[in-house]
Amino acid sequence: MTLAERLRAELGADAVITDPDVTSSYEHDMMPLAPHGSPLLVVLPGSTEDVVKTVLACGEFGVPIVPRGAGSGLSGAANAIDGCVMLVTSRMKEILEVDPDNRLAVVQPGVVNLDFRDAVEKHGLFYPPDPSSYDWCTIGGNVSTNAGGLCCVKYGVTTDSVLGLEVVLASGEVLRTGRRTVKGVAGYDLTKLFIGSEGTLGVITEITVALRPLPQVPGTTIAAFPTIEAAGAAVSQIVREGLVPSLMEIMDAASIQAVEEYLKTELGAGKGCAALLLCQSDAGGEAARHELEVIEQVCRGQGADLAYTTHDLSEGQMLLRARRAVLTALEVYGTWLTDDVCVPRTRIAELMSGCERISREVGLRIAVVGHAGDGNMHPTIVYDASSEDEFARARKAFDEILEVGLALGGTITGEHGVGKIKRDWLAREIGPVGMKVHRAIKNSLDPGNLFNPGSMF
Amino acid sequence: MTLAERLRAELGADAVITDPDVTSSYEHDMMPLAPHGSPLLVVLPGSTEDVVKTVLACGEFGVPIVPRGAGSGLSGAANAIDGCVMLVTSRMKEILEVDPDNRLAVVQPGVVNLDFRDAVEKHGLFYPPDPSSYDWCTIGGNVSTNAGGLCCVKYGVTTDSVLGLEVVLASGEVLRTGRRTVKGVAGYDLTKLFIGSEGTLGVITEITVALRPLPQVPGTTIAAFPTIEAAGAAVSQIVREGLVPSLMEIMDAASIQAVEEYLKTELGAGKGCAALLLCQSDAGGEAARHELEVIEQVCRGQGADLAYTTHDLSEGQMLLRARRAVLTALEVYGTWLTDDVCVPRTRIAELMSGCERISREVGLRIAVVGHAGDGNMHPTIVYDASSEDEFARARKAFDEILEVGLALGGTITGEHGVGKIKRDWLAREIGPVGMKVHRAIKNSLDPGNLFNPGSMF
Repeated sequence: MTLAERLRAELGADAVITDPDVTSSYEHDMMPLAPHGSPLLVVLPGSTEDVVKTVLACGEFGVPIVPRGAGSGLSGAANAIDGCVMLVTSRMKEILEVDPDNRLAVVQPGVVNLDFRDAVEKHGLFYPPDPSSYDWCTIGGNVSTNAGGLCCVKYGVTTDSVLGLEVVLASGEVLRTGRRTVKGVAGYDLTKLFIGSEGTLGVITEITVALRPLPQVPGTTIAAFPTIEAAGAAVSQIVREGLVPSLMEIMDAASIQAVEEYLKTELGAGKGCAALLLCQSDAGGEAARHELEVIEQVCRGQGADLAYTTHDLSEGQMLLRARRAVLTALEVYGTWLTDDVCVPRTRIAELMSGCERISREVGLRIAVVGHAGDGNMHPTIVYDASSEDEFARARKAFDEILEVGLALGGTITGEHGVGKIKRDWLAREIGPVGMKVHRAIKNSLDPGNLFNPGSMF
Repeated sequence: MTLAERLRAELGADAVITDPDVTSSYEHDMMPLAPHGSPLLVVLPGSTEDVVKTVLACGEFGVPIVPRGAGSGLSGAANAIDGCVMLVTSRMKEILEVDPDNRLAVVQPGVVNLDFRDAVEKHGLFYPPDPSSYDWCTIGGNVSTNAGGLCCVKYGVTTDSVLGLEVVLASGEVLRTGRRTVKGVAGYDLTKLFIGSEGTLGVITEITVALRPLPQVPGTTIAAFPTIEAAGAAVSQIVREGLVPSLMEIMDAASIQAVEEYLKTELGAGKGCAALLLCQSDAGGEAARHELEVIEQVCRGQGADLAYTTHDLSEGQMLLRARRAVLTALEVYGTWLTDDVCVPRTRIAELMSGCERISREVGLRIAVVGHAGDGNMHPTIVYDASSEDEFARARKAFDEILEVGLALGGTITGEHGVGKIKRDWLAREIGPVGMKVHRAIKNSLDPGNLFNPGSMF
């Protein structure tokens, strides 16, 4: 009996795909630089029991498993390796419970982030993590990569919203981590060990999340700066003043220009605007008014040519549209390749200057957008995918940005993960002792290297 | 050369204590039920290098190490085992850095929580974790136990404030985890694995923490309820209404009565007050006024006989004094033994009723106080330490409270940890697969069981 036959017998014929025309669509995520192979088959489990059966069968056949959510990742963590089983969670998409009185919910991994946000909003509740792909990425993928988003400056990353997990281990055993209570310190924090482990330690089959009260309708401030240094100084001062906006995004001149052309609008690039800062406050009422007033003052004090605040929701959304349109806008010029580096908040301007230098050196457009409030920047390189030379230069720029980020005391990934694209960089960042500990933990939970081999490290 | 001689030669004579009169004072923490032995010696390292030397020497001599901060713990995690080396961090008490622009600080483990709070307050910054022993416990101990406090309902536990660690491993190698940036997903979240590991995985020698803006001066609401059910319903409604007070504490009739006698004040126990709820809001200005107004209304709506709000700081502190005085007040009646159980916020009243029943059954006073905002309750049993029978009944009550907590969907420890007192309970809560994973991870990092053997599991 082949592995495919065994899985069909145990999970049902519909749960197993071997047609290469179909399986090829599961081969890679959204990171063009990461290597990928061709899977033996794709399996679509419908339950934890199905996952257990898959893990046991793959273990017996010695076939590695690559877990995958929607495939929206940007590090190749969910890319196939040759001959692997792609375990895709898309059929496990049930919201099992919403408990408004305890502000928690229990979901299967395949639930789409936006669907879940909408479902809890009906109860007056808020699930903060909002990666850019929130309208199609899954909660399981978010948990596996510890995804971030625009919310993080105030509400943290995915790990800050997760109370507990159900995980199928390499042994086929089902582990429950964490709890349903707000606090708890019984044993090691296994929940947070699995969060962000990028499918290398087990398959996450259920997630218990903590929810927050729905925030107030946000007010929005936009400020245009003549230099990136001035914008960086404004960010530092906002942090130093103790303000906690619910969103603080930055766009450089290349981003602004691309968006102006794409949206046929005027954002100031032609008038010497080198950086735009977008802030929101969802504190509500007087508190939000006060917070944004102070932010506006800080921006003006740091030399902003323009600073404007609105408490009208649709106007605020229109302003945010510019930030959200950057990647799409860049597609006019070529293929985009987005990097992900996080630096101390005081070093943002230096990172942006570094990107300008790298852009000149490699001769490619690099647009920098990012979550200024937490120092997590996404320099995005535009290149011609049909040119090997441009691809090589894009790759060079991608690495040099990481080099600059590390030199500024930052990390090689703020929210996209290591996956199959930054393995060498992980070793550089965490050093030999860190790598040894990673290998020891991986080996203790997955001695046969069944889960996502060759990813992360 | 004996181990003591080797350590004296390498760390200096002052760093090693072998006098049993002195070492005996390091034998146990504040949990009277937990077993403890007598250490071979106490070592007081002054630096990471000293810790490395101690770990290597103990490894060679096959002598286990029990790391210890101030000894304020309530689970026996830092209790000596016979013949061990107590590694006490009290000499490593330097605040290495405060960076207001990036809202972070770097400290050695022996820094006292209150000293650190005061130091960062001078920069307008706030370190939230505030366990009851905050005026003498150390940050290292807080990290090792993932300590909580009154702040948690709004600001989370210790793990939510830690960015990175330096840890000396059993191999003597120095591991650096985490980062100095707000976000980062490079590799497994080793930081959070070590936080709360109660000294079983390594010795924490440096801690990088995230700081917050100093909150506004809090307003305070106090409400007295005729039944614990009414108080529990008020807590549930406050959560459901989406309010996020910065403090929400509950006291039962036994606690109120003890405090009334101790402080010679009138809190309503004689007038049928079965529970007091104390809330604070540090949102500032109108937001705090509104938040406490709604809380007051909710309390009245749920049947509170009295509900009173003050925005005067000293009056608020006076009201809080009642809550903080409970344990001291109970000492009038005998020795106290405080339990630590966390239940879903909707189940608080049931837990308190359960404690009333257990109190009747064992014939001992049990006063329940707790962090109502996160369901973390501390039923405190009062007994005569000179009576073996009372001690046995106290021990029985201690376990039965955990039984009730687990049955209500809670956890056996919200913030005090497992230590040497709840090892059997950990196994009950997390089950055989959880235990297996714990042992696998422990074994992968500390194969010789050098660190705190017999603690946690």
